[in-house]
This record gives sequence, structure tokens and C-alpha cells, in this order.
Amino acid sequence: MTSIITPKILKGTRDFLPQEMAKRRYVMEKIRSVFVNFGYDTIETPAIEYAETLLGKYGEEGNKLTYSFEDNGGRKIALRYDQTVPFARLVAANSSDLPMPFKRYQIDKVWRADKPAKGRYREFVQCDIDIIGTESLLSEGEVARVMYEVFTRLGFSNFVIKFNSRKLINGMLGSFKISPEQQVAVIRMLDKLDKIGKSAVIKEMSSFISKEDASALLQIVTVEGTNVEKAEKLGKFGSQEIKDFLAICQDFSIPEKNLSFDPSLARGLDYYTGIIFEVYIPDVAIGAVCAGGRYADLCSLFCEKKFSGVGVAFGFDRIVLAMEELKLLAEVRLNSQVMMTNFDGGERKKMLELATRLQSAGINTEIYFETAKLGKQFKYADKKEIPFVVICGPEEIARQEVTIKVMKTGKQKTIPQSQLVEYLNGFTS
Amino acid sequence: MTSIITPKILKGTRDFLPQEMAKRRYVMEKIRSVFVNFGYDTIETPAIEYAETLLGKYGEEGNKLTYSFEDNGGRKIALRYDQTVPFARLVAANSSDLPMPFKRYQIDKVWRADKPAKGRYREFVQCDIDIIGTESLLSEGEVARVMYEVFTRLGFSNFVIKFNSRKLINGMLGSFKISPEQQVAVIRMLDKLDKIGKSAVIKEMSSFISKEDASALLQIVTVEGTNVEKAEKLGKFGSQEIKDFLAICQDFSIPEKNLSFDPSLARGLDYYTGIIFEVYIPDVAIGAVCAGGRYADLCSLFCEKKFSGVGVAFGFDRIVLAMEELKLLAEVRLNSQVMMTNFDGGERKKMLELATRLQSAGINTEIYFETAKLGKQFKYADKKEIPFVVICGPEEIARQEVTIKVMKTGKQKTIPQSQLVEYLNGFTS
Repeated sequence: MTSIITPKILKGTRDFLPQEMAKRRYVMEKIRSVFVNFGYDTIETPAIEYAETLLGKYGEEGNKLTYSFEDNGGRKIALRYDQTVPFARLVAANSSDLPMPFKRYQIDKVWRADKPAKGRYREFVQCDIDIIGTESLLSEGEVARVMYEVFTRLGFSNFVIKFNSRKLINGMLGSFKISPEQQVAVIRMLDKLDKIGKSAVIKEMSSFISKEDASALLQIVTVEGTNVEKAEKLGKFGSQEIKDFLAICQDFSIPEKNLSFDPSLARGLDYYTGIIFEVYIPDVAIGAVCAGGRYADLCSLFCEKKFSGVGVAFGFDRIVLAMEELKLLAEVRLNSQVMMTNFDGGERKKMLELATRLQSAGINTEIYFETAKLGKQFKYADKKEIPFVVICGPEEIARQEVTIKVMKTGKQKTIPQSQLVEYLNGFTS
Repeated sequence: MTSIITPKILKGTRDFLPQEMAKRRYVMEKIRSVFVNFGYDTIETPAIEYAETLLGKYGEEGNKLTYSFEDNGGRKIALRYDQTVPFARLVAANSSDLPMPFKRYQIDKVWRADKPAKGRYREFVQCDIDIIGTESLLSEGEVARVMYEVFTRLGFSNFVIKFNSRKLINGMLGSFKISPEQQVAVIRMLDKLDKIGKSAVIKEMSSFISKEDASALLQIVTVEGTNVEKAEKLGKFGSQEIKDFLAICQDFSIPEKNLSFDPSLARGLDYYTGIIFEVYIPDVAIGAVCAGGRYADLCSLFCEKKFSGVGVAFGFDRIVLAMEELKLLAEVRLNSQVMMTNFDGGERKKMLELATRLQSAGINTEIYFETAKLGKQFKYADKKEIPFVVICGPEEIARQEVTIKVMKTGKQKTIPQSQLVEYLNGFTS
């Protein structure tokens, strides 16, 4: 006998059983359906690439967090760390074959050699959209509308698309004589406002500006009013882009209650150059569930041609978590809608014929494989939460009938076989 | 300026551009829809696992072909080599939480540290189904029916599900006094019959049986007739399972022309214990497009409990290749069904309103982001093969109309805005 291997998996990675997968697939396909509905197409890049390609961007910390190794041929290889770098590599290599502007979505896995913690995984899913090859502010508007549609169709009623403009941030910081070189550091400090509070941020900023200036800056970024009022108040720092964007969002019919201009929103990366986004679900304490913005140069690592674009990444696992918490996934079930019971002998042909008829009508139908006692068969259907069980035993066959048992109520109904599809179609479609 | 990294990928891995992805997704979702229609649910296992888990089964060659490495914590890790071993590990760890019998599908990537060649990739997709926890021959029948449905719904008219029984093979080999220990080697030789021909196989067998016996054995395994006739002729070697399976397939309404009992079919792995399958597309020379069979003990590596089952893997890349060759993917297009043209200024609100109306009706609609000349906008729609372009300029707006251009014919039609959704629904659904 071979020795037994303990069936364990790495921390930070996960097995998903059928019930969990049903929920994850429901969320994933809802998100995908919005992307498709807005005309985004998908591309795919390999999960394994030359380490040189994937490590080009992230510096020391990214390198440590990227799974990399040597293959049998001594090549340095790495696992995909995010979807942006491979996307940039693909665009650089294929730009003449792609329609421009190019709208793409990608729903795929990424890997991080990170210390696992609650909500921090070594293998997880990112859902990205990007529009590249146009500087039209309409694309920022569309991305906002897509975010609105995704969270609305997923069933969230309370969510906020926060946004700001990098140009406005630069204007605000510039007015305090913060040099462009220092602005990145100050932006990172600003980004912590929600987490560490005003006084801590003022303290951190003291190496760049006086306490009074820091305090005045925080006063400005926490200005109050409607979106349009705030944009008006910050006019002297350069809020025209914000105003234009707000007008576009209105034309996109994005409700004011789901859209919040937040002048303190900064997003750490110096990659962004225009409108930036973060989406929050106020009722669930899990941080941003979607984020991104406008960038000037997607492919700088791989080619000299500049591709401006706007893109956001949806945090799939956080969204699933938020939906679980808000009970938005309570109704998601496994695939089978009908189970056909199994009788001994001569009933087999009729059982299979009826199953095929139901399947052909698009009703997900499974057969019970063994001629077990009906009680055992019902128990299996119960465990899988299959809503309908169809019974076609010797008596039913003699009268060309079937009995349908509604598992939730336990009620049974006998109807002619010829009406089976029509009858169940009324419940399952 | 940073130095430019050449945007190249590893041999044996692939980028997929939107057009290719549209085809691949079409095929994948068709296959998935059959699995779902028959009540299969999906599970997911991590792409990275402990090397000990993934290397348990394959011996020396498998080890060499498995990507493995050490992570930052010095743990030995490997990339998923197939879907069977992780599935077995998951079942061993969770069997009490799973409904039994358990039907699952998995469509996911696997990696092989192999020398790339035509049709041999380092990263590719496998589509597996398995039914475990029942020895009922109905499950073999269902798997055959699923294979029949997959290839039929994909549009293949000419395909053959070849099958045989390991029990029958053992019976045939036993009658020539080939010991159970030698049978695995002889089965591997038999497996080459199609490739190397009779005389070469007879020669290879000479270390086990006489030339006369080898010749007689090959005579037997190439017996002719209908499926039932062949099963009758081989009765003395134990063909009862074949006869029962044929009766079940008939009840499953699988046409005789798509089902071929081939007593010479062997399948190399000694893992199989009952009915075995291979599916071929005679019009395309790419080998088996689907294969599998009945096994007695899925989880032997991970637990002592025995799970018998039957499963097959669909070769996704080969199926896509075959469909390309037979022009079964010619009609697959990108996602957008409608493009809204973009005019300057005041028309924006109306354009976005109409786009939203179309999207809400389930018609995939994109807007053109820039106020370019109409000719340029049409060219973009042409490149993406978007079938309909909707024009809503100042004149249309004044009359509450829209103009629809059918891109294939170039014909235009002007209708009231209120009829737009209904009109396009007739073409796109």
C-alpha cells in the first residue's frame, strides 16, 4: 500500500466547494455580463511569463511579492502579479492589430507571495476593465457608469463611487508650494486621512510644509456641499475637469447619491494623471471594492508609443464577501433544477427520455443513478436543494403521467407526461 | 528614460487577442452549458499546491513535467499538472460535505514543463467531468450522452465515441495466458495499433506471447460488425458489461453512428477498470478530442476510503482547432452588437440615453468616444465587425428619430427613437 499524503493546501489559497462556487460564478457572470453589455471584449495572457517582464514595474517590494523561479531550461519565470503589466505587454506587441480605442475586460487569477491574512490571499481573482487610446473624458464617464451598473445589478442599493482629479490635487498642492517631486509623498500621506485621521496626517506632512499650511490643506480637501458646489469652491485650484466629468455623469444618468466628489481621495500610485476612482459599500467595513483611474502611459515599460487610458479593477473577493454579509447571495443554488427518480428495470427508457426532453428545453436536469429507495433519492435532492423531483414509476408509466414533487413544500402533483416541460418551464425560467 | 523590455512570451504559452478569445469563450461556454444542463456543478482548487500533493502520482516523468519551485518560506510548491489529482485531494478532504454521488465539472488551466511543439503547450485548458460515488453503469451512459451533446451542440455532425471495456480486455488477454502483471505492458502495445500497425504490434508483443497468439489476439480485437454483433462475437471473453452499456446508450438515444465499440481501444493508464472512452473527429487529423473512463479508486493517494467513478476530459485546444478547421467558428463575433456614433455638444445626452436603453434591453452597445468624422467612426465599427451603427445627429434629434446603418449592406433606415429597441431586438436576439 502506498503511504497516504495529507490532503492539505497552502495558506492563502483556497478550495471552493460547489455551493461556494455557485455563488462565485453568479457574481463573476453578473460582472462579466455588464462588461459585455457595454461592448468590452476580453483578452488572455499567460499565467507564467518571463520574470523580467513581470518584475519590470514594481521595484523591491513587488519583486519580493512576485512568485518567481527557474524552469527546466534555466529561464527565469514568474507568476502573474496583476493584469496591468501583461496587458501593457500585449498592447505593446500587438497595437497594430487592435482596434483603437481599445476596450478590454479581463477576469483572471493573480498570485502574490504575500503573508496570508484575513482577506489577503496568495491566489485571487481580479476583474479589470480598461479603455485605451482615447483621452476623451467620455471614457471616464463610461467607466463610472459601468461601476454603477455592476454594483446595481449585483443588488447593492447603498454604494458610493468616490472620485477626485490628479490635476486638482496637483493644483491644490502646488498652491502650497509643494514641489512636484514632493507631491507624490504628500499624496501618499493624504491617502491615509480616512485611516489615521487629520492630526496624524498633519504631523506626517511636517517635513514638507508648516503645520498651518497642512491644516489649511486638509481644510480644503474636506470641503463640504454637493458635488457641484464642492467643484465650484475649489475652482481656483483647477477643478474644470471635475466639472466636465460631473456633467458627463449626469448625461450618463448616474444618480447623485452614488457619486461623491472627494477632494481628499489621492490613490498612492504616481501612475495616475487624471480622474481617479474608489468605490465603497458603506454598510460593510472592507475598504474599497473597486478602484482605478486615468493614466497617461500604459506601455512605458515595453514601447515608446504612449497609450493613455482609463481603467478600474473590481475586487472580486471583497465583493463576494460584501454580498455574503448583506445576504445578497442567499438565493443562489446549485445547477440542477430537476431530479428524475430512478426505478428498477423497464422505467429506465422513459426516465431518460423525459430527462432529455427537459434538458433540451433548457431545464437543468439530473437523473438519480441508482435504483435506491425513494426516500434516499429524495434525501439526495434535498442535500443539493434541487427544487423539483420528477417521479415516473410503473403506475405513472401505465397512465402516461408523471408525478412532480415540489421539494420546498413537499406537495405532489400528477400530470400527463406531455405537459411536463411546459409545467416546469413555468417555474424554472 | 527607463530601458525598454522586449514584449515577448515563453514558448508554449499564448496571448489571445479579442477575436481569438471570442471563439474560445464561445466554445468554452457551449461546453459548460452542457455540463450545467446535466446538473454538473463546479469546484475550484488552487493553481499552486504543495509539490508533495501534485507530484504524488506521476513518477519520474510527471515530476520532470511539473513546474515546481521553492517559495519565500522555503516550501516546495508546484503548478497544477492536471485536474484529477487536485480533485482527488479535495474529495479526500471534504467527502462528508459533498453530496454522493457527486457530479462535478472543472474548466481550468494546467501547466506542463514540456518541450513545446505544434499542439503541445506549456499552459492549456482542460474541461473535465466526473461522477463519483456510484458504480451504476447509468453513469457511464450519462457520460457518453454528455459527450454526444457536447459535440452535437458545438456543431460537429461527424464524430465517433469509441469505447471498450477493461474487463473485456483482461478477459481477452487472460485467454492467451498473459498474466495480470504483463497485461499493462500488452495494453500499452495494443494502444499503438492505430499508430504503428499490426505487424509492428505483433513484433513488440513477442516477448510476452508467440507470434501466432499475438496474431490471433489482433484478429479478435479487430472483429467486425455492428456494436451488438461485435459484443456477441466476443461473448466468451466477458462482454456482458459492453452489452449492458449498449442497451443503456440506446435508452439514452445516442445514435448508433456516433458510438463505436472498438475492442482494440486500450488507453495506456492502468488507472481504468471498466468502460473506457475516446472521441474522434474523422475529418480532422488531431487524435482524440476527449477521453476517459471508469476507475475504481480516485483518492488512493490521499485517503483509504475508495471512491469509484467515471470521468472524461475534453481537450479544449484540440476542439477549438478542429472547429476552426471545419469552419464552425466563422460566425463568432466580438461582443458589441451596436455602436452609437458621437456628435459634438448637445447630442451627447441623447446618445447616452439611447445607449442605456439598448443596454438595458440586453443589446450589447458601445459608444464612440470621440467626436471624429463619421467616416472614421464607421471604420472603427467595421474593424470590430459591429453589425449595427446608430446615428443620432442634430437632424434626427430635431425629429425624435434615429438612423440605423446596417454595416454589412451599407443600407440606412431612419425610424422614430421610440422604436429603436424593438427594431434592433428583432436582429440581435
